[in-house]
Amino acid sequence: MNMKFIDKLNSIWARNNSLVCVGLDPDFAKMPDCVKSGKNPIFAFNRAIIDATCKDVCCYKPQIACYEGQCAEEDLMMTLDYIRKKCPEVPVILDAKRGDIGNTSKMYAKEAFERYGADAVTLNPYMGMDALKPFLDYADKGAVILCRTSNAGAKEIQELKLENGLPLYKHVAELIAGPWNYNGNNMLVAGATAPAELGEIRKIVGRTPLLVPGIGAQGGDLEGVLKFGLTPEQTGLVINSSRGIIYASNGEDFAEKAGEETRKLKAAINSLR
Amino acid sequence: MNMKFIDKLNSIWARNNSLVCVGLDPDFAKMPDCVKSGKNPIFAFNRAIIDATCKDVCCYKPQIACYEGQCAEEDLMMTLDYIRKKCPEVPVILDAKRGDIGNTSKMYAKEAFERYGADAVTLNPYMGMDALKPFLDYADKGAVILCRTSNAGAKEIQELKLENGLPLYKHVAELIAGPWNYNGNNMLVAGATAPAELGEIRKIVGRTPLLVPGIGAQGGDLEGVLKFGLTPEQTGLVINSSRGIIYASNGEDFAEKAGEETRKLKAAINSLR
Repeated sequence: MNMKFIDKLNSIWARNNSLVCVGLDPDFAKMPDCVKSGKNPIFAFNRAIIDATCKDVCCYKPQIACYEGQCAEEDLMMTLDYIRKKCPEVPVILDAKRGDIGNTSKMYAKEAFERYGADAVTLNPYMGMDALKPFLDYADKGAVILCRTSNAGAKEIQELKLENGLPLYKHVAELIAGPWNYNGNNMLVAGATAPAELGEIRKIVGRTPLLVPGIGAQGGDLEGVLKFGLTPEQTGLVINSSRGIIYASNGEDFAEKAGEETRKLKAAINSLR
Repeated sequence: MNMKFIDKLNSIWARNNSLVCVGLDPDFAKMPDCVKSGKNPIFAFNRAIIDATCKDVCCYKPQIACYEGQCAEEDLMMTLDYIRKKCPEVPVILDAKRGDIGNTSKMYAKEAFERYGADAVTLNPYMGMDALKPFLDYADKGAVILCRTSNAGAKEIQELKLENGLPLYKHVAELIAGPWNYNGNNMLVAGATAPAELGEIRKIVGRTPLLVPGIGAQGGDLEGVLKFGLTPEQTGLVINSSRGIIYASNGEDFAEKAGEETRKLKAAINSLR
């Protein structure tokens, strides 16, 4: 299926009537005992979560660190394969925050798009456009570039004022939605913990979609995100929750509870748009 | 061996009388046919390079993208194991350019320092200190943080002028060598393609070591790097070459030629200090 990422996203927003993205960030230590015994327990955990949530999400976002840190590349591969089989209409954003010199970024792009077959990948803008180009050049794939992140330390660099008075993140937003968006597949990361800044980003980028982390465990402001972030079509947002959904229960009902939390978040979002 | 990274670096600079770092960035397509047939060919390639260069380097720097992009995590593990056996005095900088929210960075730190046992890892400053802290908190390990990179696009973000007139990379240099350096194990990335900026960084960071990519295939200026980058002790630099060394020959003599190129670069550097 060679559907362009942005079209896939527009289509799933409508089909599942949802702006919720579930972060597939399994941490073996926090997983319920009932899935820990078999082979590929991390995949088994993800599969149950996917079965319970796939009608109520617009994206899945596996954080690659969780797989690399636990020697679980095989589980990540199996997870992507399973999503392609079970719900091929749901795009997968591989959260990897890549960005390196050209020949290295080519290898990372190969990893994200060819080894794992992700629909999009998160990227870091610090090294400039030539570090992103090997990803941007995949015309059907999405590039989700950090702009104003959800962590407390985000301010330290991203809100530095430039000589024209603009904070750095606004300049980065202009690049991501402007010259860097030559294939029309870009998104920006704008944290839910800074809804005013997210609103500033929305003003700059028009209808370019935003990936919004920071809801749930990080304490982000859902109401502010929707107030400032929705496009005129009442979409344009991919609102991620990881820990608040996948660890909703530590018992045998973990998948059921993950499904419930997903639907709760979906309803909370839909009641505000 | 729990030697502090910075002490290990000081010790190997003296012992091998070398500022050369060899980048272990194997690309299967470019490797000589003679190592391609066995199991773990990427490791076999690296092992031969290590055998031929280990008395003439101050660091090895595997680029993790090359392993992830080629499903070669096992080869990377074997390479690190081999270095620990063959030349435990040579520190390994895992080039990964990580940086993410706290619990994710913890997973990446686990990957770099526990899974692979690297001595140091490269990091991206865009998300601020809390994204780096899980790495910085490993008191014996090195944090090599991007400041002014060697690629052409580096200018786009890193040289933006802040409202106080400083370019962003200088502000980042102040952070890396100042408040972020609470364990005294930090280094900065300063590309050989911008020797004047590298000199500005040296003025800011005192004796903090610089990792210098961009010599060789990227066309960096070795003379400028040494003129502007050396500390009063005539060290303080880890000068990386990857493609210029590991692909010096495409024949059965690839390791021999890699050794020759390493010694040529070492001699060129030493003649300038």
